[in-house]
Amino acid sequence: MPSIPLDNIVIILVASKHPGNIGSAARAMHNMGCSQLRLAAPRCGIDEDAYRLAKAGGAVLDSARSYRSLSTALSGIRLVVGTTAKTGGNREKTFPPRLLAPRILAHAARQKAAILFGPEDTGLVDGDLLRCQLLMRIPTSPVSRSMNLAQAVMLSCYELLLASRERPPERVPHLAPVGQIEAMYDQVERSLLEIGFLTPKTARHMMFGLRRLLGRTGLEESEVAMLRGIARQISWYGRRGLRTE
Amino acid sequence: MPSIPLDNIVIILVASKHPGNIGSAARAMHNMGCSQLRLAAPRCGIDEDAYRLAKAGGAVLDSARSYRSLSTALSGIRLVVGTTAKTGGNREKTFPPRLLAPRILAHAARQKAAILFGPEDTGLVDGDLLRCQLLMRIPTSPVSRSMNLAQAVMLSCYELLLASRERPPERVPHLAPVGQIEAMYDQVERSLLEIGFLTPKTARHMMFGLRRLLGRTGLEESEVAMLRGIARQISWYGRRGLRTE
Repeated sequence: MPSIPLDNIVIILVASKHPGNIGSAARAMHNMGCSQLRLAAPRCGIDEDAYRLAKAGGAVLDSARSYRSLSTALSGIRLVVGTTAKTGGNREKTFPPRLLAPRILAHAARQKAAILFGPEDTGLVDGDLLRCQLLMRIPTSPVSRSMNLAQAVMLSCYELLLASRERPPERVPHLAPVGQIEAMYDQVERSLLEIGFLTPKTARHMMFGLRRLLGRTGLEESEVAMLRGIARQISWYGRRGLRTE
Repeated sequence: MPSIPLDNIVIILVASKHPGNIGSAARAMHNMGCSQLRLAAPRCGIDEDAYRLAKAGGAVLDSARSYRSLSTALSGIRLVVGTTAKTGGNREKTFPPRLLAPRILAHAARQKAAILFGPEDTGLVDGDLLRCQLLMRIPTSPVSRSMNLAQAVMLSCYELLLASRERPPERVPHLAPVGQIEAMYDQVERSLLEIGFLTPKTARHMMFGLRRLLGRTGLEESEVAMLRGIARQISWYGRRGLRTE
């Protein structure tokens, strides 16, 4: 669960043209735990196509509000962040989303912050950018900057979600106790000696290889148990063979 | 400019259904400087719709190759990473893209690495996941895990692009070819069946556990050879035992 709620993050699509993009953006927002969508001076409606592409994000579309202008769409917003793919003009001081996300969230902890996305054909124009306190540029290949609208929304919301969880906690496996692991190696070594895969002469070197291989996996208890099970079965099978000789 | 080229990163779409998603994925790849696209057992063609959505990524579609099966699509690949949104089953050990990207890139500095994306309706199924050495899960809201295919491709390629601009890769092992690894698993399974550690009923589940364990080690050729040697010796020993009964 996010440690900082994303309720104060408002995604504003400015003058969007394609209902499909609005729907896809809603789905992306829903994936990333963002729910506040506003349309500023949209050039299309929220139609069936939008709902079809929104999937579970249909709820985001249900509560989305349309405004006649960007000015009215910004009502109640304190921090305004504009996205741009272009360079030049008034676009020098841009920041990547990874850098901006914590800053946006810090604001959103107590006031509404909006991220603006321009229309499919032009992006945000100078008049829109004027309204923005911060500009965000998503890193891309230098030869392919123009990104689908919903993809840009996705990447921005993704960075916000991750930042809201602080850094992603690495999933640390619950390692097996060292004693269990050593007992497993002993048992495996005995079994491999019994079946003649190892000889007393080669055992040290070969077990080193096996330890190096298994050591880097971060063995968990169930896995140690599985390996011991294999070794036990090899020994049992071996002894059974010997008895009958 | 990327400090590590992304030429060795191969995006494999498995059994995709919608040309539009393939086109959108190609556009996303192009945005993020990835160009190698393969289609494994696609359920649709690359049509006008795909090109319309690919925009500048049309070049990625031009050079995309289709394969009859996932096996053939994996030709020449050393590191196989599967993406999954589902939980449970054999999907416990997953890593977020931000954590995996540097590791994937380190491999891609000298050998081909593939990231697999499952079909729109089911995602990667168990049989596909078996082939993967590492599993990746994109962080999402807990209530909305199911993500558009092209969006998942975008987020993965985005993390790779950012990681490629960070520090130089750590030294990585020279991984064993996928074919050798599969042959090893076959041989180990046969041996474990012979000695009764596995039964035809438990084999699938237990081998999955073994694959998860060994898969994350990054098996090298000498280690695959060692494991095959152990399996061979178990079988030989087993048969010798049987002969004397």
